[in-house]
Amino acid sequence: MGSTQDLDYPQIIFQYINGFLVSKVLFTACELGVFDLLLESGEPLSSDAIAAHLGTSPSGTERLLDACVGLKLLAVEVTREGACYRNTEISNLYLTKSSPKSQYHIMMYYSNTVYLCWHYLTDAVREGRNQYERAFGNSSKDPFGAMYRSEEEMLKFMAGQNSIWSICGRDVLAAFDLSPFRHIYDLGGGGGALAQACVSVYPNSTVAIYDLPKVVQVAKEWFVPSEERQITFHEG
Amino acid sequence: MGSTQDLDYPQIIFQYINGFLVSKVLFTACELGVFDLLLESGEPLSSDAIAAHLGTSPSGTERLLDACVGLKLLAVEVTREGACYRNTEISNLYLTKSSPKSQYHIMMYYSNTVYLCWHYLTDAVREGRNQYERAFGNSSKDPFGAMYRSEEEMLKFMAGQNSIWSICGRDVLAAFDLSPFRHIYDLGGGGGALAQACVSVYPNSTVAIYDLPKVVQVAKEWFVPSEERQITFHEG
Repeated sequence: MGSTQDLDYPQIIFQYINGFLVSKVLFTACELGVFDLLLESGEPLSSDAIAAHLGTSPSGTERLLDACVGLKLLAVEVTREGACYRNTEISNLYLTKSSPKSQYHIMMYYSNTVYLCWHYLTDAVREGRNQYERAFGNSSKDPFGAMYRSEEEMLKFMAGQNSIWSICGRDVLAAFDLSPFRHIYDLGGGGGALAQACVSVYPNSTVAIYDLPKVVQVAKEWFVPSEERQITFHEG
Repeated sequence: MGSTQDLDYPQIIFQYINGFLVSKVLFTACELGVFDLLLESGEPLSSDAIAAHLGTSPSGTERLLDACVGLKLLAVEVTREGACYRNTEISNLYLTKSSPKSQYHIMMYYSNTVYLCWHYLTDAVREGRNQYERAFGNSSKDPFGAMYRSEEEMLKFMAGQNSIWSICGRDVLAAFDLSPFRHIYDLGGGGGALAQACVSVYPNSTVAIYDLPKVVQVAKEWFVPSEERQITFHEG
């Protein structure tokens, strides 16, 4: 920063300006299932084959795939028959729906909810409040009303939270020695990912999750197996 | 990429996911005039003073300023009286409205027009066409109809194009030897920034700009000084 080179050509500014384009390329390739298709196929595919499988436009698909190559999310092999695309190792691990480390759900939440809210960031700073009202018509006094505006939206949000915990949960927990504690309380514990990391790092602990009734119901149904005896739920 | 470390904690993916947040922090700080205020004041200002000057909320302003510090767009000095913020060298040069190298206009165009179009990137790839219709109600067959949907919007777009040329115009032109050519034609030459770079690099050349009548009118009025004899305009 601040070097003569940066002052002549401010690379960092252009990187920041283009940040939203990069986010949306990643989100869109995930949403359309590009990485899932390439994982399943087990072999590199041409842009036309990918477009045919996904039901997308050939021209739009080719441009999206080349953008992903530029971001090193895909690799391309050019043969006599043309260009064929395959996943990189990172894409297989983090961008496919079926991977245990998948970040798919948090990306969908960011892409479809947070992205639109941030369109109104200038208003948010002027007014000092969130922009759920402009973005979704929900009162800004009820942020969870927007996040949980449908069961599908709530599921996406909870799955999104869980996907981040699946990567950094153990590291966060290992930063503190919680072994002297037998009973751990998780206020607003949502889908229970932190609780599951807790009982995995501290096998002698029990975790009591407190959250809204509808969150607890969804967490029990979708995220925490009923045979998990160390985690209990409390609606509040 | 693909190192064990990246595979354990995919830094690059999180950087891509957060790209749009970074863009909007930069755009919003520019739009609210944070960098202009700090340039004019000539001394570091507290968050409260900045909020009072800009008419923004104290809490939102403080969070925005701290985000800018994180991005190295602002520097902070913590004194006994509290934290005071000042521009970095790069911000003074590229993020203030009055700088000859200002990127303000292209950022406003990206923030208020492109950002919303890209919200529909998934639809764009499915359908193979731009999303001006979903974003602004303009027909996708008429992209310039959306860009030029008001004179203000057209001015922003043209000023935005010019701000990029002000940084890289000379380098682009110097990549080719155009000195044998006396008459240069610029189709869709817009605000005339490329033409101005041309006559500056090749002082013996003349440039004829062809563009839509309303673009030519705005270019003459706002961007190309009337005493500039080497540049002519043609409406078409």
